[in-house]
Amino acid sequence: MPPQIVEKIIFGDYVLTMDDARPIVSEGALAVDQGKIVAVGNARDIRRKFTSNTEYSGKDNVVLPGLVNGHTHAAMTLLRGYSDDIPLVEWLNEHINPIEAAVVSEEFVEVGTQLACWEMIRGGTTTFVDMYFFHEVAASVVDEIGIRALISASIVDQPRNDAVDIDDQWMQAKEFIHNWSSKSRCSTVRPILGGHAIYTLQQEHLIQLRELAIKYELPVHIHLAESQFETSYSQTTYGNTPINFLESIDFFEPHVIAAHVIWSTAEEIEILAQRKVGVIHNPTSNTKIASGISPIAKYLDAGVIVGLGTDGAATNNDLDMWEEMRLAAYLQKVTNMDPTVLPAKVVLEMATKKGAEAIGLESEIGTLREGMRADVIQVGLKNVHQLPMYDLQSHLVYATHASDVNGVFVDGQCLYNNGKFPTLDTERVHTQVLQLAESIRYNKQSLI
Amino acid sequence: MPPQIVEKIIFGDYVLTMDDARPIVSEGALAVDQGKIVAVGNARDIRRKFTSNTEYSGKDNVVLPGLVNGHTHAAMTLLRGYSDDIPLVEWLNEHINPIEAAVVSEEFVEVGTQLACWEMIRGGTTTFVDMYFFHEVAASVVDEIGIRALISASIVDQPRNDAVDIDDQWMQAKEFIHNWSSKSRCSTVRPILGGHAIYTLQQEHLIQLRELAIKYELPVHIHLAESQFETSYSQTTYGNTPINFLESIDFFEPHVIAAHVIWSTAEEIEILAQRKVGVIHNPTSNTKIASGISPIAKYLDAGVIVGLGTDGAATNNDLDMWEEMRLAAYLQKVTNMDPTVLPAKVVLEMATKKGAEAIGLESEIGTLREGMRADVIQVGLKNVHQLPMYDLQSHLVYATHASDVNGVFVDGQCLYNNGKFPTLDTERVHTQVLQLAESIRYNKQSLI
Repeated sequence: MPPQIVEKIIFGDYVLTMDDARPIVSEGALAVDQGKIVAVGNARDIRRKFTSNTEYSGKDNVVLPGLVNGHTHAAMTLLRGYSDDIPLVEWLNEHINPIEAAVVSEEFVEVGTQLACWEMIRGGTTTFVDMYFFHEVAASVVDEIGIRALISASIVDQPRNDAVDIDDQWMQAKEFIHNWSSKSRCSTVRPILGGHAIYTLQQEHLIQLRELAIKYELPVHIHLAESQFETSYSQTTYGNTPINFLESIDFFEPHVIAAHVIWSTAEEIEILAQRKVGVIHNPTSNTKIASGISPIAKYLDAGVIVGLGTDGAATNNDLDMWEEMRLAAYLQKVTNMDPTVLPAKVVLEMATKKGAEAIGLESEIGTLREGMRADVIQVGLKNVHQLPMYDLQSHLVYATHASDVNGVFVDGQCLYNNGKFPTLDTERVHTQVLQLAESIRYNKQSLI
Repeated sequence: MPPQIVEKIIFGDYVLTMDDARPIVSEGALAVDQGKIVAVGNARDIRRKFTSNTEYSGKDNVVLPGLVNGHTHAAMTLLRGYSDDIPLVEWLNEHINPIEAAVVSEEFVEVGTQLACWEMIRGGTTTFVDMYFFHEVAASVVDEIGIRALISASIVDQPRNDAVDIDDQWMQAKEFIHNWSSKSRCSTVRPILGGHAIYTLQQEHLIQLRELAIKYELPVHIHLAESQFETSYSQTTYGNTPINFLESIDFFEPHVIAAHVIWSTAEEIEILAQRKVGVIHNPTSNTKIASGISPIAKYLDAGVIVGLGTDGAATNNDLDMWEEMRLAAYLQKVTNMDPTVLPAKVVLEMATKKGAEAIGLESEIGTLREGMRADVIQVGLKNVHQLPMYDLQSHLVYATHASDVNGVFVDGQCLYNNGKFPTLDTERVHTQVLQLAESIRYNKQSLI
């Protein structure tokens, strides 16, 4: 039989599939066609069965599933380092809210999302879950660049002064969902619902959100149990802790993507597991703004689905999933005083297939096997900070950096290859970012 | 007056001096001659007063003092990722000690130290404090490459089976000190004394170490209060906690560089401050092997001198001071539930001038001002993960990576410039590392 012609063959010294059936293929390759993985195997077998005009060499590289950033606010990358090392309430009320009110616009979201996509692609993130203003603009940017994203149409009761009123928010959310759901066969954008948090949404709107999510069969993205403030608010307002309160209104009936989830009781951990809530752990943001350390080891023991996220660059200050992996491991090891907790394999799963499960995409991404979407990265293994290598998985988690990523593919389309971004005019974005930052700095001075 | 001819002028969009008198110079430059900083100032002023055939452009870069890695085991970089995610005692007794007994040789230390220097230079570290076997070999490597290092002639009572006996260790230490002290005017190597730890050295040898350090006016480098095991050992053996015990034998009379220092009482923190002990904080190693979180914020409040270190790559798994800076900040913020703790400026000081003070070199390095040694780095500010910038110091701590470093100078000598390592044959080191790793893997299998 002559070899089958496919669009691309992607090679690697190793292919780390994240599929327990065949975790690591040495001297491996992926055959990719029409956005999907046609076959995974030994390079020689793949060459015998497939042929392609487009081959990506894998020398000194490992091929693995693209990383899943389960919670971020992409456009806020324009506020990277805008205000650091200050208390959360002051940060939000005196810095972030005022500057957002002054500068957030369609252009801000367009350029900020482009910058975020550029950084995420450079570092091997192929899917992210976004929550911010002007979600229609963010979706268009994502669609054009070709990175995969779940874009939340978000509802918030206590928005900025100039934000649209709640009825308009619902209307816009429904329009957004109709619009992008119809395009979903030929776009990397998935519209989802978002609710900011239990302390910024009234109970009736949380319930409405649940109803809409059930009706449209879409996940709901929410900040949950992030701070001790939120727990007090929930206790005072609902006589219950945040997760218990949401359970009491059946909020977890649809799939929920819950970011942070730091402050939980043993009873609530059971709820998270039983309701298959997708918990997104954001270790950098949680520690940098001193929200707390999420008890991830307990979650995993209880069978909770846990993915990883960077949160926005205003609290991180980058969108680097490699640093999130490391920090997740370090924090659990030291808080449990046990270095065996969260070993490299588990952390890698959180950044790939468990992350995919947490956001409801486990049947399409997060694992490299036949039939899955070709969301794939090639990562260099022999840069100086990586020499030598004894164990592939610990190597990736403990010694690999965003700058080691050499190739990034989403739906089989190449988004990054050795310095080049075929779908992104990085020079133009760079110029626009500097211009917008100038105006942000100007506004910052007038706000002081 | 005609401009003075100097060896080099190093430019930067900013010069971050770490000198409180003039912290940041915009559009700045350093004039460097005979290994020292001749002047720091505005680029235009420097150009008026100085001229040089060798200029290093600073477009989109900041110039700052080279980073000080206050505690590492350089040659162990060959064991990067050799064994991760396992309990400390098993890690040491069943993995590290057996493999070290099998493979550590002069060649291992030569190549391992070269690899470590390569990685550290690439990431902007200009000075490190080393403790390992075959210190004479490590010193020769450092001398040849031109990075600055304090190399410990270390004493240990419970060494590997094949290690030299204690009398020979003392003799070798004295020879090493004589040898390298006499070269110190024309070498970047500084010999110091090292004692492994209170649980691997008898009291009489700790006292001997103190005597020798006083006699030679040299610092002593020691692991201190690293684990709960060490505290129990100290209590059982000496009826006292580790720092109290060392104080009781007047161990802090000479300058002591104490690595880790996690488990300390309030009384002991006072001792650290009063005795001007140089505490080296190793946040990655401390969390990754679950030793504990050092109460650095308390140390700083008490006036303890605190620097930063990576520890060895067998517990880290890299030698990246940027990641140590970030992790130090995150850990203190979250354990104190206060995001204002360890702000960027303080963390940068720990990596530069406070680090220099902790290791006893504050009169020579760690600050950019006239008369100081020209240990200087140029760091890019406009890579994608750094866009945009609002605050230089938070930018460096929270968004800058080792890969952003563009220029590295020690004693004015260029060790790295935009991809090139003038004093290091990186290709040869790479080849040798892969060969040695092959033999380490072979030995690993036979040890299982």
